Amino acid sequence: MIIVRRLLPIPNPFRPKIRAEMSTLAPQTAEPLPAPRKRVILSGIQPTGIPHLGNYLGALSNWVNLQNTSKPEDELLFTVVGWHALTLPQKPKELATSRMDMLAILLAIGIDPKRCILFHQDHNPLHTELAWILSCLTPIGKLKRMTTWKSRLATSKNMRDGSEVDETGLNVGLFTYPVLQAADILVYRATHVPVGEDQSQHLELSRDLADQFNRTFKGPNRMFPLPTQFNTSSKRILSLRDSASKMSKSSPDPSSRILLTDSPNEIASKIRTAVTDSIAGITYDPINRPGTANLLTILAASKGEDVHETVKGYESKNHGALKRDVTEALQEMLRGPREEFERMKSEQGYLQQVAQEGKEKAVEKAEQTMREVRRRVGLA
Amino acid sequence: MIIVRRLLPIPNPFRPKIRAEMSTLAPQTAEPLPAPRKRVILSGIQPTGIPHLGNYLGALSNWVNLQNTSKPEDELLFTVVGWHALTLPQKPKELATSRMDMLAILLAIGIDPKRCILFHQDHNPLHTELAWILSCLTPIGKLKRMTTWKSRLATSKNMRDGSEVDETGLNVGLFTYPVLQAADILVYRATHVPVGEDQSQHLELSRDLADQFNRTFKGPNRMFPLPTQFNTSSKRILSLRDSASKMSKSSPDPSSRILLTDSPNEIASKIRTAVTDSIAGITYDPINRPGTANLLTILAASKGEDVHETVKGYESKNHGALKRDVTEALQEMLRGPREEFERMKSEQGYLQQVAQEGKEKAVEKAEQTMREVRRRVGLA
Repeated sequence: MIIVRRLLPIPNPFRPKIRAEMSTLAPQTAEPLPAPRKRVILSGIQPTGIPHLGNYLGALSNWVNLQNTSKPEDELLFTVVGWHALTLPQKPKELATSRMDMLAILLAIGIDPKRCILFHQDHNPLHTELAWILSCLTPIGKLKRMTTWKSRLATSKNMRDGSEVDETGLNVGLFTYPVLQAADILVYRATHVPVGEDQSQHLELSRDLADQFNRTFKGPNRMFPLPTQFNTSSKRILSLRDSASKMSKSSPDPSSRILLTDSPNEIASKIRTAVTDSIAGITYDPINRPGTANLLTILAASKGEDVHETVKGYESKNHGALKRDVTEALQEMLRGPREEFERMKSEQGYLQQVAQEGKEKAVEKAEQTMREVRRRVGLA
Repeated sequence: MIIVRRLLPIPNPFRPKIRAEMSTLAPQTAEPLPAPRKRVILSGIQPTGIPHLGNYLGALSNWVNLQNTSKPEDELLFTVVGWHALTLPQKPKELATSRMDMLAILLAIGIDPKRCILFHQDHNPLHTELAWILSCLTPIGKLKRMTTWKSRLATSKNMRDGSEVDETGLNVGLFTYPVLQAADILVYRATHVPVGEDQSQHLELSRDLADQFNRTFKGPNRMFPLPTQFNTSSKRILSLRDSASKMSKSSPDPSSRILLTDSPNEIASKIRTAVTDSIAGITYDPINRPGTANLLTILAASKGEDVHETVKGYESKNHGALKRDVTEALQEMLRGPREEFERMKSEQGYLQQVAQEGKEKAVEKAEQTMREVRRRVGLA
């Protein structure tokens, strides 16, 4: 049973109902937490449009799980990382909308700003201050070996309508953002960072820089804990139209993905046209039946079950029955967040207030770190 | 005649006397100011030990001149750039001392914190925030073409007792600091930057980035003025022991340089051993008689005269007479700053207060810029 911890009463009268609903609907598959001592857990997401089901089941629902299963003494920080979005060209108006939408979505799926520090990265310039200091400890060669900046280039090519990006014109931010990411983590002395496999290299840099700082600028205590990666049981959700690809916001076909804000009719229509196979009966076989397996994965995640448990009920059923149940489960799972998101959008004042309170808590915590950092490097 | 403007009464009782003294002693050779409209003038200096005569006559005395000859509507910002010092390895305790000493020196030579915004760069994290945003507009290729980061490597070799610095291990800060420098300037929408020839390339980057931002993120008005370089009549002061080199803090021979805090006896001793030549009589001939010309340059600068005027009085005199007069002029010029510096050092509370007031003014002005910057890029 999941208990949603509330440290303070929630001022918004409609939130408890949705929160309680979400707490039972969010997938309950976070790994057991590794260390018994107090943890500081931090994770971030870029503000780039409404998240799809892959984002939700792959990352965001884990944030809710973390919140709901963490110990009371654990500190949780969740941040919308606007500065990282700038490493690729953005339309300012769209970015501004995405940035507030992402905050609204996080609240809508059940992140509790009284339990967590929920904030905009770009509200706390101490991240960039620490990033500068860390950049003076980062060998250029180490950043050159990062593979992600080249893969982001490829991503940007997808996103920019195939227009060729000139590699010699790559911006410096795209090269140095792993240092900013290290600062995002270390400025709160975070101990645990839930990240996907593709981010391991960056977390390794954060650990290296923490260690480098600790050795270069000694003090009575170790300045930075070395942040630990922990893999959450993130689901890999495939495109509904092409089982060879992950569900992606950059695919040109909108029916390949389900957005967290899709209406029940949109969900039904997209699941109806989802690719499966012509084999009779339902089995879970990700290699030979990826489309069918994807639907089973979605269904299991929506119900908070293990997929091998879920498939048992379908051995004698057909794809029509599976799709009907997936549709219903998704409609049920996303109803709360969608309604809550719409309500949030109409309450900009409340969103601003959440952002402001998050900013104050984030800045206060970061300032504690930076006072000591400045003292140790000789700038205080 | 020089009028020292005071916008507010100065609380420190001993300051007016020294200030008046300095205002007549500082070299009076700033160029006429180019534009009639309101200017925002910014300049910075690294906190790396007590400045020597070359620093003073080459840069710092020009700050005093600027202060004393600028129009009342001009805004002046002078900053001690601690973050730039971190691009080379520093001993934290020495850096902390240098950082406060540099503030004390600037006050001691006559910078008036009521007339100028005098502040520590590292007190205003909005510099690093803007640096991040600008780094997302800076092509990597443009930074690679900067010559200074390679020359700083050479400097660091001199400074580190000949220990070889591994180029592959060069830190990222050393590579990206021109972007931070652009942010130092643009975050105050500075219009004029007094810099030496060797910094032209960096100011060009600041202009490029201002222009790039203006074109990428349009608004009702141009976001950033393109900062204008103006050359101040900086004196090139040579080593007293080796006329082939500039006076430098990294020379192993302390008698090669005069520090702003040298006692009258130290000044006398260093001038006495200064290299000249064995030619009879005194003429100003920088090519063939560099040591003698250097002494004449110092004498002229100390008296606020043109060197060709100064040399006229020495045609029939010898090196002994010249050295005597240089010694006296330097003792006279540096007496006020030295005494004032010692007093400042004993008034850490006052220094802290000046730094705090400077910080508040700098942050307030930068915040005006950043509010608009954030709005334009879509992060507000």
